[in-house]
Amino acid sequence: MKNIGIDIGGTFIKAAIVENTGKIILSSKTPTPKDGASLPEKVVEIIRELTDKAGVAISDIEHIGMGVPGVCDVKHGRVISCTNIEGCSNVSICEYVSKQTGVPSFIDNDANCAALGEYMMSKTKPNGFVFVTLGTGVGGGIILNGKILRGINCAAGEIGHIVIDKAGERCNCGRYGCWERYASVSALVRQTKQAGFTGNVTGKTVFEERIKGNRLADEVLDTWLRYVAEGICDLVNIFQPEVVAIGGGISREGDIILKPVREFVEKNVVTAPTSLKKTEIKISQLFNDAGVVGASFLYTQN
Amino acid sequence: MKNIGIDIGGTFIKAAIVENTGKIILSSKTPTPKDGASLPEKVVEIIRELTDKAGVAISDIEHIGMGVPGVCDVKHGRVISCTNIEGCSNVSICEYVSKQTGVPSFIDNDANCAALGEYMMSKTKPNGFVFVTLGTGVGGGIILNGKILRGINCAAGEIGHIVIDKAGERCNCGRYGCWERYASVSALVRQTKQAGFTGNVTGKTVFEERIKGNRLADEVLDTWLRYVAEGICDLVNIFQPEVVAIGGGISREGDIILKPVREFVEKNVVTAPTSLKKTEIKISQLFNDAGVVGASFLYTQN
Repeated sequence: MKNIGIDIGGTFIKAAIVENTGKIILSSKTPTPKDGASLPEKVVEIIRELTDKAGVAISDIEHIGMGVPGVCDVKHGRVISCTNIEGCSNVSICEYVSKQTGVPSFIDNDANCAALGEYMMSKTKPNGFVFVTLGTGVGGGIILNGKILRGINCAAGEIGHIVIDKAGERCNCGRYGCWERYASVSALVRQTKQAGFTGNVTGKTVFEERIKGNRLADEVLDTWLRYVAEGICDLVNIFQPEVVAIGGGISREGDIILKPVREFVEKNVVTAPTSLKKTEIKISQLFNDAGVVGASFLYTQN
Repeated sequence: MKNIGIDIGGTFIKAAIVENTGKIILSSKTPTPKDGASLPEKVVEIIRELTDKAGVAISDIEHIGMGVPGVCDVKHGRVISCTNIEGCSNVSICEYVSKQTGVPSFIDNDANCAALGEYMMSKTKPNGFVFVTLGTGVGGGIILNGKILRGINCAAGEIGHIVIDKAGERCNCGRYGCWERYASVSALVRQTKQAGFTGNVTGKTVFEERIKGNRLADEVLDTWLRYVAEGICDLVNIFQPEVVAIGGGISREGDIILKPVREFVEKNVVTAPTSLKKTEIKISQLFNDAGVVGASFLYTQN
């Protein structure tokens, strides 16, 4: 069985033909159109190009799934709003794509798709799965009993906007002290600059500098990881999930991130006697492919 | 159909025969035994007294449910630990109660029971229900798709232990800045005293004083309600539930609590376009009966 997963971003649209085992057969990457209203046509064009190139008939595709960086009406297959794509409000994308391709189409938030991808590709199908992406912001998706936690308006899982400092920095959402103001990669870059690092500062700077023995880099990193851990500990206290997976490009740093986060959570989570199971915190597996793979599995959610 | 709900607290054990409509037929209140190990026998004694008094044969009781202020192994009907009841660790209470009464028995955390009671007695059976109790601490229970969110170890829903001030006051759980350090009734009492109020300060003091035109009381209350609202806003961002219900004795203050909390959440929740549904924030309905009523419905959860 083959499906297509499409990960619509503010800059690029990634698409892939994905087997129902999660294996990617062929993928593509196309710039996102400037005019969001033309998104449905663009998506159909991408699907045609991809199937042509793979030598797969569109009739062999069973489902199409799309992840969108915004708020969706999952039930009616409609993008409600997309901050990063202009003109992409109230776009009935599923109806158009289904009609043009003859394939049932589904939509969800991109972070939910990524969470679903990680969940579906995990060996154990954890009972309670929280996916945390560290990037420009802090995003996430929560899978409970195999289903995406969507909430009343398909906008649940805004885990970057839990407050960890009630008198803290103003967040883009308007509130003060949101977790993503401290624990995102953008925040790490800001914290690195504030510590006095200059030049081309990126999220990698402190990771590179600490290997060279730079103590200041260690300090910046320790502080940032503490922020990351605070929010994860909150999520463990709320969900007691079987697994928390940390994603986003920076998660490739692996144990440097994982070890202190695990230690903090182990020490600070609301005490559960040792006889009980503990949440496993790990690095995500799919990295950049989580979005397309998860989107290809959206049909399991309806 | 009749069930029995038992709400085991650190000081009292409340018990009630409850119809499956949620209507209480007869209830009782007994001091909690000092020795936690004797809890199972005490519970059976309470059940016998209650059924005798009501003139109901034990064979007419279909299920027994117990709420415990601690961590439970729901599956095996075992209390794992109870901070407030000495000697109440690893007590297989359900097995004993079922055997002695011949009635299937169930157990869960007391906050989960209260949440379930409120949920079952709500007219709409909300799709996503978050129950927040403001008391000595901040407790809670989360009902998703009609089921208590228990997590991997039946200890989920520790919503009082999400951090709202990463450099804040130390909490009993060992972490710094937990929500309950700011938003519990104990916190309100502390904040009232810190503001200079003396004498017999309780959670009601500022509510009483503000009616008399005391501006300082207004200030203390505003600050406390802001803390309450911060955590509720976090929970709405995470769950986008249909309903958040605020419980605990202090919730009888009604609109004085509700109005500012609603305003804060409305303003600060991650922006959802107006076309979408919004979480309704309300005061719980059952007050002190939530625990026994919820416990009587525990059989629906297994």
